[in-house]
Amino acid sequence: MSLIVQKYGGTSVGSAERIRNVARRILDSHEAGDQIVAVVSAMSGVTNRLIELSEEVTGKTQNATEREMDVLLSTGEQTTIALISMAINSMGGKAVSLTGAQAGIQTDGVHTKARISNITPDEVHRLLNDGNIVILAGFQGRSPEGYITTLGRGGSDLTAIAMAAAVDAELCQIYTDVKGVYTCDPRVVKTAQKIEEISYDEMLEMASSGSKVMQSRSVEFAKKFGVRFEVRSSLNQQPGTLVLEETMSMESVVIRGISLERDQAKITIEGVRDQPGTAAKVFTSIAGANIIVDMIVQNVSKTGTTDISFTVGQADLANAEKTLNAVLPDIGEDVSLVSQEGIAKLSVVGIGMRSHSGVASQMFDTLSKAGINIQMISTSEIKITVTVGNDEIDDAARAVHSAFGLDDESAD
Amino acid sequence: MSLIVQKYGGTSVGSAERIRNVARRILDSHEAGDQIVAVVSAMSGVTNRLIELSEEVTGKTQNATEREMDVLLSTGEQTTIALISMAINSMGGKAVSLTGAQAGIQTDGVHTKARISNITPDEVHRLLNDGNIVILAGFQGRSPEGYITTLGRGGSDLTAIAMAAAVDAELCQIYTDVKGVYTCDPRVVKTAQKIEEISYDEMLEMASSGSKVMQSRSVEFAKKFGVRFEVRSSLNQQPGTLVLEETMSMESVVIRGISLERDQAKITIEGVRDQPGTAAKVFTSIAGANIIVDMIVQNVSKTGTTDISFTVGQADLANAEKTLNAVLPDIGEDVSLVSQEGIAKLSVVGIGMRSHSGVASQMFDTLSKAGINIQMISTSEIKITVTVGNDEIDDAARAVHSAFGLDDESAD
Repeated sequence: MSLIVQKYGGTSVGSAERIRNVARRILDSHEAGDQIVAVVSAMSGVTNRLIELSEEVTGKTQNATEREMDVLLSTGEQTTIALISMAINSMGGKAVSLTGAQAGIQTDGVHTKARISNITPDEVHRLLNDGNIVILAGFQGRSPEGYITTLGRGGSDLTAIAMAAAVDAELCQIYTDVKGVYTCDPRVVKTAQKIEEISYDEMLEMASSGSKVMQSRSVEFAKKFGVRFEVRSSLNQQPGTLVLEETMSMESVVIRGISLERDQAKITIEGVRDQPGTAAKVFTSIAGANIIVDMIVQNVSKTGTTDISFTVGQADLANAEKTLNAVLPDIGEDVSLVSQEGIAKLSVVGIGMRSHSGVASQMFDTLSKAGINIQMISTSEIKITVTVGNDEIDDAARAVHSAFGLDDESAD
Repeated sequence: MSLIVQKYGGTSVGSAERIRNVARRILDSHEAGDQIVAVVSAMSGVTNRLIELSEEVTGKTQNATEREMDVLLSTGEQTTIALISMAINSMGGKAVSLTGAQAGIQTDGVHTKARISNITPDEVHRLLNDGNIVILAGFQGRSPEGYITTLGRGGSDLTAIAMAAAVDAELCQIYTDVKGVYTCDPRVVKTAQKIEEISYDEMLEMASSGSKVMQSRSVEFAKKFGVRFEVRSSLNQQPGTLVLEETMSMESVVIRGISLERDQAKITIEGVRDQPGTAAKVFTSIAGANIIVDMIVQNVSKTGTTDISFTVGQADLANAEKTLNAVLPDIGEDVSLVSQEGIAKLSVVGIGMRSHSGVASQMFDTLSKAGINIQMISTSEIKITVTVGNDEIDDAARAVHSAFGLDDESAD
């Protein structure tokens, strides 16, 4: 008998019928002989309706008190845990629901984006040992004052991973509307394959490069506490992708997967005097405008001045330009700003590249043969990222996917 | 500075606009210099929708687990407390919401109809002393195991009365969609007046006789703990009806009010042998069928047999007859059942009748002069009830209302 933590998102529990399906699935897992803690989200759409209601009562221009926003939003998950539990019970199972607070999930007091500080899973263990299935509200906890807190975006995944760590679960299963993590977006690369196993670090690089199966925060938590988790579909019985500590055999695969991110923009500040504090000025001003920057590239200076380039989401470009123009005079007299829209990022990720040389050259060679021009290059220990034109990204992905032997030969 | 507990029902908070109105009213009370604890119900319609959802996920034929029903239904009040609090805060006030559990409302473990066992209002006092308005979820508490419980029908009134007792409030204001308790139903008696003050006992007799402003359970609780409460309208600023311990001056009014109950049926069991245990057999069988019985009348026996009459709601008549027919053979050989539909009950209530003689005779005389036949009579220390035909009840009410000097002379 193993202890398994399962997590079902808002789409999986989005209607009465889907709730019954999830209840049946949880019950089947329990009847197969495992102890089950199932973490559930609010039914899809519920959270947005609650936010609308809060805007109506506060007159829209006002911000709702964050403490009260948490009291409001946490009702979404509380509704789901009750419905799933009663559905399981109506099918002959034995389920008990727990709110975050009841399950001993303690957080700090930062409402709407609290961090889990501790989990005391005594009640969870007691209920499991009495033969119950435990249905746990995701996304929420309890502050030191005893107030309801919520964990922010991706909070239910985090609840599942953290509870799996606290109860020392054998496995944490994250049920989603995708079958797992793929070697590349299957809508772009028809021959993409589901990855059977991936290391935490590879998963983090894939997530940070646009493969948004899970938020980095939850993957980092799983890595820190060594929680093995599986990303799989709630619509079928197929195994998904197992995410775990890297194993010896993993290094034999050079590239685990490829991730894409479209609609980026590149900003270059030309003629920057190469002196301490310049980059800090640039990126402090950008961060102050809440713009997320990626792929910062600066070449070694030869003439006493240099160029700094970086990418931002295309939607943030105008704001970024406005922000930078305000600080340019502080950076130097002959400094100028050049920006380019319509670019995309292509990243190859794999821990195998640590022990295999020539990955970068093979990637560049492949793109060159496909007639695709590389604009920027950035590398980490297990990832190589290049930018290409938005209109070239699909061809680039297919070429690289094939070159690194990722194609599923059985695919049509 | 007084401490006042207010209670707002589901209709009063039934939309975003109404929530803003209630928030404004609470804030005005606070700005007038009082400490305020406001108890609120679920928005009207929400509880029914949650019940429907529970039926959908359990497949309707199944009963939802009562523990989970409480987890589900309590989200209704939790939603309202958050919305009211954020609305008050957006208007410049300082409000904090508390669930039943957070407010220290402890109950027994009987889910869906729990009883309050104790209230530890430390958190309520702390928040009030910090200058906050406290918005408290009605209808809910916390079991000894730390589970969410609900208090059943009328539970929010009970929360308000019980919290008023626990914090030793100056007054508990029950805001409703009526202006107060009236001397008679104003839809029937146009000259009916709002009662300024009424004793607990009179209020209980009015409630048990069809004037369903509040459930008897809450009035009994208020009487037990001496909580002064006021029933008033949430739509205007007029004072309502104050319910309190009887005062010396109250006895000067013979009749406080008149209550009506239509669509009753009378059942008579004729030829019952006058021996111990017969009545018990009859009413045990009726209670077993969950039928509420009222106005039991049995005359002194002269011939060794007697007739037992009682009233039930007309909707329960068929079920009552079926139940009784099954036990009739146990009661006697020559026993027969006679029933009559289409009757109504008229009750006059007043603690003054304890010290005034002739109330009954005046009532009977009035009805006689109006040509109305009295079918059954039943009395308590402060109430006289008669049954008349459904079609005669309006005339009867107007005649008695006038005869006892209750008419508002200024009414048109």
